[in-house]
Amino acid sequence: MQRALSVTRAENFPQWYQAVVRDADMAENSPVRGCMVIKPWGYGVWERIQALLDSRIKATGHDNCYFPLFVPLSFIAKEAQHVEGFAKEMAVVTHHRLKTIDGVLQPDPDAKLEEPLIVRPTSETIIGDAFQRWIKSYRDLPLLVNQWANVVRWEMRTRLFLRTAEFLWQEGHTAHADEADAMAETLKMLEVYRAFAEDVLAMPVIAGEKPENERFPGADNTYSIEAMMQDGKALQSGTSHYLGTHFAEAQTIRFQDKEGGLSFCHTTSWGVSTRLIGGVIMTHGDDDGLRLPPAIAPRQIVIVPMLRDKPEDADVLAYCETLAGELSCRSALGEPIRVLVDKKPIKSAEKRWNWVRRGAPLIVEIGPRDAAGGQVTYMRRDALRDGDKVRSVSAARGEFVGGVSSLLEDIQASLHAEAKARLDGEIRSDITSFEALADYFGAAEEDEDAASAFKGWVRVRWSKPTGAALEAVADRLKALKLTVRCAPMQQPSGDLGTCLFTGAPAVEEVLVARAY
Amino acid sequence: MQRALSVTRAENFPQWYQAVVRDADMAENSPVRGCMVIKPWGYGVWERIQALLDSRIKATGHDNCYFPLFVPLSFIAKEAQHVEGFAKEMAVVTHHRLKTIDGVLQPDPDAKLEEPLIVRPTSETIIGDAFQRWIKSYRDLPLLVNQWANVVRWEMRTRLFLRTAEFLWQEGHTAHADEADAMAETLKMLEVYRAFAEDVLAMPVIAGEKPENERFPGADNTYSIEAMMQDGKALQSGTSHYLGTHFAEAQTIRFQDKEGGLSFCHTTSWGVSTRLIGGVIMTHGDDDGLRLPPAIAPRQIVIVPMLRDKPEDADVLAYCETLAGELSCRSALGEPIRVLVDKKPIKSAEKRWNWVRRGAPLIVEIGPRDAAGGQVTYMRRDALRDGDKVRSVSAARGEFVGGVSSLLEDIQASLHAEAKARLDGEIRSDITSFEALADYFGAAEEDEDAASAFKGWVRVRWSKPTGAALEAVADRLKALKLTVRCAPMQQPSGDLGTCLFTGAPAVEEVLVARAY
Repeated sequence: MQRALSVTRAENFPQWYQAVVRDADMAENSPVRGCMVIKPWGYGVWERIQALLDSRIKATGHDNCYFPLFVPLSFIAKEAQHVEGFAKEMAVVTHHRLKTIDGVLQPDPDAKLEEPLIVRPTSETIIGDAFQRWIKSYRDLPLLVNQWANVVRWEMRTRLFLRTAEFLWQEGHTAHADEADAMAETLKMLEVYRAFAEDVLAMPVIAGEKPENERFPGADNTYSIEAMMQDGKALQSGTSHYLGTHFAEAQTIRFQDKEGGLSFCHTTSWGVSTRLIGGVIMTHGDDDGLRLPPAIAPRQIVIVPMLRDKPEDADVLAYCETLAGELSCRSALGEPIRVLVDKKPIKSAEKRWNWVRRGAPLIVEIGPRDAAGGQVTYMRRDALRDGDKVRSVSAARGEFVGGVSSLLEDIQASLHAEAKARLDGEIRSDITSFEALADYFGAAEEDEDAASAFKGWVRVRWSKPTGAALEAVADRLKALKLTVRCAPMQQPSGDLGTCLFTGAPAVEEVLVARAY
Repeated sequence: MQRALSVTRAENFPQWYQAVVRDADMAENSPVRGCMVIKPWGYGVWERIQALLDSRIKATGHDNCYFPLFVPLSFIAKEAQHVEGFAKEMAVVTHHRLKTIDGVLQPDPDAKLEEPLIVRPTSETIIGDAFQRWIKSYRDLPLLVNQWANVVRWEMRTRLFLRTAEFLWQEGHTAHADEADAMAETLKMLEVYRAFAEDVLAMPVIAGEKPENERFPGADNTYSIEAMMQDGKALQSGTSHYLGTHFAEAQTIRFQDKEGGLSFCHTTSWGVSTRLIGGVIMTHGDDDGLRLPPAIAPRQIVIVPMLRDKPEDADVLAYCETLAGELSCRSALGEPIRVLVDKKPIKSAEKRWNWVRRGAPLIVEIGPRDAAGGQVTYMRRDALRDGDKVRSVSAARGEFVGGVSSLLEDIQASLHAEAKARLDGEIRSDITSFEALADYFGAAEEDEDAASAFKGWVRVRWSKPTGAALEAVADRLKALKLTVRCAPMQQPSGDLGTCLFTGAPAVEEVLVARAY
């Protein structure tokens, strides 16, 4: 069967991912190590994510601000665990001028900074410094801010969208009078992320708490949403941290309470990034390329005029423009429908496949017969094939326009349902011994085919070990290329039996999986 | 007379500017030299500017992309004039890791980059590198992209919004088959900026071409919009550059034309930045603080409930919420009206003056009598005072709600008209000798009061000198702290007489002014 990509998911999932990113015109590597160029279609998806998530962040009472790109080295050094977690992978600015010396342009030795500046890997410390100035009294709390920004972490092995040295994200930072309020905020934003992933990205996720060894450097608790990719691996897609008073103590973020006493604030931070786009690709893509949920498709409907350099081309174009006008007046998913007439001077068959690969939810092809007969011929990208053949549907124009809102909403729902069935169906909870776990995942080591075979997640019960005991568990899992992803928020009640790892009484269920 | 700021424009314009930025809660200096923290109200204005300008940029056919923050040193070195113009003021990344050595966290000597990276001062070279890959044939042209990003220029003397080491901007970059198309694009975007400044920022500007010595490093022609601040100084508020084939040649950006030959592209770039916010402040602010045009006010109407810790407070609050709901259903300037009920637990008089200083276009105060009588009491921020007294207007609620759209549109128009009258009235064109020019501006040197007195712009005729002759003119002007701002697009026809500087025949009119 002829597919629009040169490699299928089954043949080689990582190569398939690269092919989608490239052929859907999403992004490419740049000459700067680990930094990507996000192309118009990929950036258009990010703009949709920004707009829709931003309105949810604002609706929960947060204001956007902007803080400096650079963090003084001494700020990073203030919070010990934070240094430990981030110090190994940061871009360091040491000079503020270039100079031509012996014909070579280079950092000017006379322009060395007294204190090196770090390009922010995250902004807890620089925002904490502002909080320390802004917060005087309990009346200033809670302080709820968010920032959309670029950040840099010097990653050694990078993959477009999933792990890049520079990436785009939003980072929320809040300060509260007590633990209860800060913890409520942490969980509220986790829920905002969960609902956003499901409603907008059509990407089902499981929200839960990360184990101690996977916490954000400096956090008391880290929560995440975890999505299952089509190769069975987990993608951590958003995190929300309760930071206790660690950062407040390191930076003297205090408030005067009602009784006049001075207390440290409890702070939180939470973020999602351009990594979400990688999640969308690996959740919804198929062997013909990307499939975009209508909510985040920069263009939800692309109309391709079938032009033949003949006189009737003018009628076809005029018909396309009229149709586009009618569709643009309609709304779907609460917003005006986004339509494009693709008039690029290339063959219409090439255009069709370009938009298939890019994942436009509805692709409409209009030829002279459609124009003359008041017809519309369209393809649903979420259900492109009927067996091997491409499924085209014809409809009267009025009927198509009248039903297009529910068509788009149905595509959104279908993509979610398909991914949800996979997530629900691929979490095993019948594995109760480490041997059985090793057996399920362990074949990887011996057999190349079995290694690349789909492996879902396993839900196991454990005693929530900490410290060295947890490290021991993590090491045993690491040998199987596994990690504990999270302890889901929804937990069973009653007696949980024994811990799969330690044999001690189990206290909660956790998800174990391979991960990005 | 009691004013809401501690200093007036007449007393000390620079101090007044700082007071507005601070007291309107727009931005503050950060601990990172030259970098600012943009606070929620200031960032809200930037979000409005982004949203409205972005839609105009997209409507003219440009797609948004995102390119790397870092530019390899060798890229900067490629275009000679560009190096010359930017090399002196850039943040240079030299290491990619920190390490604790002898107890001190510092750049790890083992993690020195082979090639230093520059934090982008502008993106011509890194985007040119992508263009070189993306452009193959005339079918790929014009290529029209835009980027919203942060950039860094190591400025020595910084002022919030006007000149900061890091700032936010948009930079458009386009490639074309020939000069005519590239020049048309350059002028089209200049006109987009002019119209945006006037329509949205209510900031009248004069669009024109910069003299040779003020061109962007590497440009053939640079155009700008220039706005007159309330101290008479000019603020360059946006620029559009025709780059010829300089960058294309330096980076081998070529296309195959219809005949199969290879030609260099003609490129353009154009940008506006957070500096626009400084322009808005110095165009519209008064001695009570900021006055925001409704189009860019994050909240156009702020409702202040006059609460007294009494039982009727509940009625007042309920009335405010109902009013806010009614107002939010209305539109003004083509968008739903943005309303806030300020429920912060501070005194209502303090709230009133906070919103006066922040420049909310309409401030509504609701007390128990208003609530009981179905009344609304409001202040127009653009016309706050009647002599020394604050002018409050009372109206029936239905009447106020019914007329609020035109009220906001009238405020937008009034702010523009006020600034336009100043610009039109303060450009002298009766100065025809350098002595008279020196006389008008020269008092500055001798008399402190006269020096700080308002001086507008002067429109003079010149012979458009180049090279050394232009440098000589620039030096003479510099002694008077003046520069040639631009040659306005609208030029007189017929004989222009002689050049004010050289006595040679004049070829155009230029604006001469002090500037930020």
